[in-house]
Amino acid sequence: MGRALEESDDPDERVGSAGIVEKRFWTLGTEADPFLLDNRQTLAPITVAYETYGTLNAARDNVILVQHGLTGSSHAAGKYAPENRSVGYWDSLIGPGKVFDTDRFFVVAVNSLGGCRGTTGPSSIDPRTGRPYGLTFPIITIRDMVRLQERFLRECLGIERLRLVTGGSMGGMQALEWAVTFADRTDAVLPIATTPRLSARGIAFNEIARRAICLDPKWRNGEYYDHPEGGPDAGLALARMVGTITYLSDPIMERMFGRTPAAQTSALERDLHARFDVERYLHEEGEALVRRFDANSYLYLTKAVDLHDISRDYPTMEAALARITARIFFISISSDDLFPPHETEAAVAVLRRLGKAVEYHCLDSVYGHDGFLVEQARLRPLIRAFLRSPD
Amino acid sequence: MGRALEESDDPDERVGSAGIVEKRFWTLGTEADPFLLDNRQTLAPITVAYETYGTLNAARDNVILVQHGLTGSSHAAGKYAPENRSVGYWDSLIGPGKVFDTDRFFVVAVNSLGGCRGTTGPSSIDPRTGRPYGLTFPIITIRDMVRLQERFLRECLGIERLRLVTGGSMGGMQALEWAVTFADRTDAVLPIATTPRLSARGIAFNEIARRAICLDPKWRNGEYYDHPEGGPDAGLALARMVGTITYLSDPIMERMFGRTPAAQTSALERDLHARFDVERYLHEEGEALVRRFDANSYLYLTKAVDLHDISRDYPTMEAALARITARIFFISISSDDLFPPHETEAAVAVLRRLGKAVEYHCLDSVYGHDGFLVEQARLRPLIRAFLRSPD
Repeated sequence: MGRALEESDDPDERVGSAGIVEKRFWTLGTEADPFLLDNRQTLAPITVAYETYGTLNAARDNVILVQHGLTGSSHAAGKYAPENRSVGYWDSLIGPGKVFDTDRFFVVAVNSLGGCRGTTGPSSIDPRTGRPYGLTFPIITIRDMVRLQERFLRECLGIERLRLVTGGSMGGMQALEWAVTFADRTDAVLPIATTPRLSARGIAFNEIARRAICLDPKWRNGEYYDHPEGGPDAGLALARMVGTITYLSDPIMERMFGRTPAAQTSALERDLHARFDVERYLHEEGEALVRRFDANSYLYLTKAVDLHDISRDYPTMEAALARITARIFFISISSDDLFPPHETEAAVAVLRRLGKAVEYHCLDSVYGHDGFLVEQARLRPLIRAFLRSPD
Repeated sequence: MGRALEESDDPDERVGSAGIVEKRFWTLGTEADPFLLDNRQTLAPITVAYETYGTLNAARDNVILVQHGLTGSSHAAGKYAPENRSVGYWDSLIGPGKVFDTDRFFVVAVNSLGGCRGTTGPSSIDPRTGRPYGLTFPIITIRDMVRLQERFLRECLGIERLRLVTGGSMGGMQALEWAVTFADRTDAVLPIATTPRLSARGIAFNEIARRAICLDPKWRNGEYYDHPEGGPDAGLALARMVGTITYLSDPIMERMFGRTPAAQTSALERDLHARFDVERYLHEEGEALVRRFDANSYLYLTKAVDLHDISRDYPTMEAALARITARIFFISISSDDLFPPHETEAAVAVLRRLGKAVEYHCLDSVYGHDGFLVEQARLRPLIRAFLRSPD
């Protein structure tokens, strides 16, 4: 409603694409010199999958780091091939002339540690055994992901300073973590639809998702990679169905599905497995994830999210946030049930009390947590204003 | 806070118990004269498990019908034996001198059709095969449950008129259904923490619960009753974990659990299966349900709830509600995420427009959907006032 009009005035409607992009890889560490994790275990080697858009300037100070959500990848913008129909998850935000303007900025997008889209995770080969890690993969944290990114940026790309770190959901956790852990090297952070530490409710949903995977007999305690019967597709799909509910708001589910049956009403009255439209949607979302994601990665990444508390190893939340020197702009989404605005607002209140340069916007949207992906047209002017203000 | 003071003035603190009560059974129908379900399938015989508290008066017009939630039973008040520690689910509401005063009223509590606590359901023996129905049990509806209760009250107890029908959650759906389907025989209804029709979000949660059961290899397409390896305990426990999240509110989960670990923090950093306290609680709730509930009943009762729409077979919601002649008092709970107050309020608005005798109270409580069980001390004065007003 009225959004079409808004968009015709939007400079982002008249801009280009990041174009054809390429996923690249870089590897860190050896058995003799491994990466040390938060829990004191080590991991080596670690491969990092990444993409870059735009050009690094001579001063190496025009870098924006973009972080994905739970099941995302390094593919934030552009296409891998001209004939591809799909583009990166934040394509409308990243490109020449766009909000994250690749004519000015060098945008780096990495795949998270523990994932399965190119960066080392539980489906990677453990060099000590020649077989996939499975459940021998160590427990990782959001801070581990960020410390790995810092090593990668410095050692692979020669980048020591970031103009901006941003991301939504799990990506937003990493953005704020950058501002705390590498406070002296982060100019600005933009965490979207996220939380400084996961709530009991968030942990509860993640545990249910993990149990769904473990309940699938094909999970086989994580050792399913070479099995002729395949992996725990049904369990992973159910885990995703749980996630999907938390990504939507009650009003948007009513608007999208209501009580419309997927089949004839009479089928619903006769067949236990006949579906309402909302059930059809959940199942489709579940099946779609199975095609692109690894069940063990889902276990490890949700656990990393559960363990996330920006104040970990600090005496208080205030002590952790006091480290921040970056300008911060938090965006929450009014209908986000997973990371409700009040969690962000609590952090904003602490930062204001500490006299930090913090801005905050609660986007009034019906799209729930998914808003950080769905509402890009409404995010653009907010982000543009934030990026412009200090220049 | 202040509730202790309130309670010392509460007449319900100075009253007695329903005492030692007994579960009774009554059976309806034969193969030649079966019960006809909403979906035109038939079922016979049907056994109804019920309990009564108090004495039916000579005019047979002092009857209160009490309905349980999804996994409840006919055990609403009193104890089965003096040495038992547990009492009925609404024991503080039902008894001599209590809100539902058994010195004045004859309180009847029945177990729902499709359940597994005495009334016929999928775990009952199908007389045609001599084996449990399993998935050959027909799809049932909330209206089927209510029509069966009407037959039971009339044919078994000689009751044609109800002073009040009440219940929480699925029980509240049945209470409102009584007011619509048997409008001329229901004097008053008191639906608590419920909805006139299930939302897309409610359907979505139920489908995830059902999938959890079906994912358990021990479910065996519903034919697990005689299997030496037992039934789908892990799947049913996971289904209950899903339910449990929806019964609690975000604030109460923060207050009860927060981020407290169930084990040492170091375990959480090393062991994928180590638990936060909220995870421990979910698992305990899941395991507790397994000891008292049948997985197939969970499938059928959640499906009945999904199918529930008080306007089914009427041209509009308004046409359905227009049938009501009973006085109605709706109670919703401010933090109820499963049946949010706005769903009740929509029905209240229609009823007011129709000039019906409707009262409404949104209980300001942090306990979420569980409030209908947890907040009995705060429900008492509200219910007492409603019961008193017409006399």
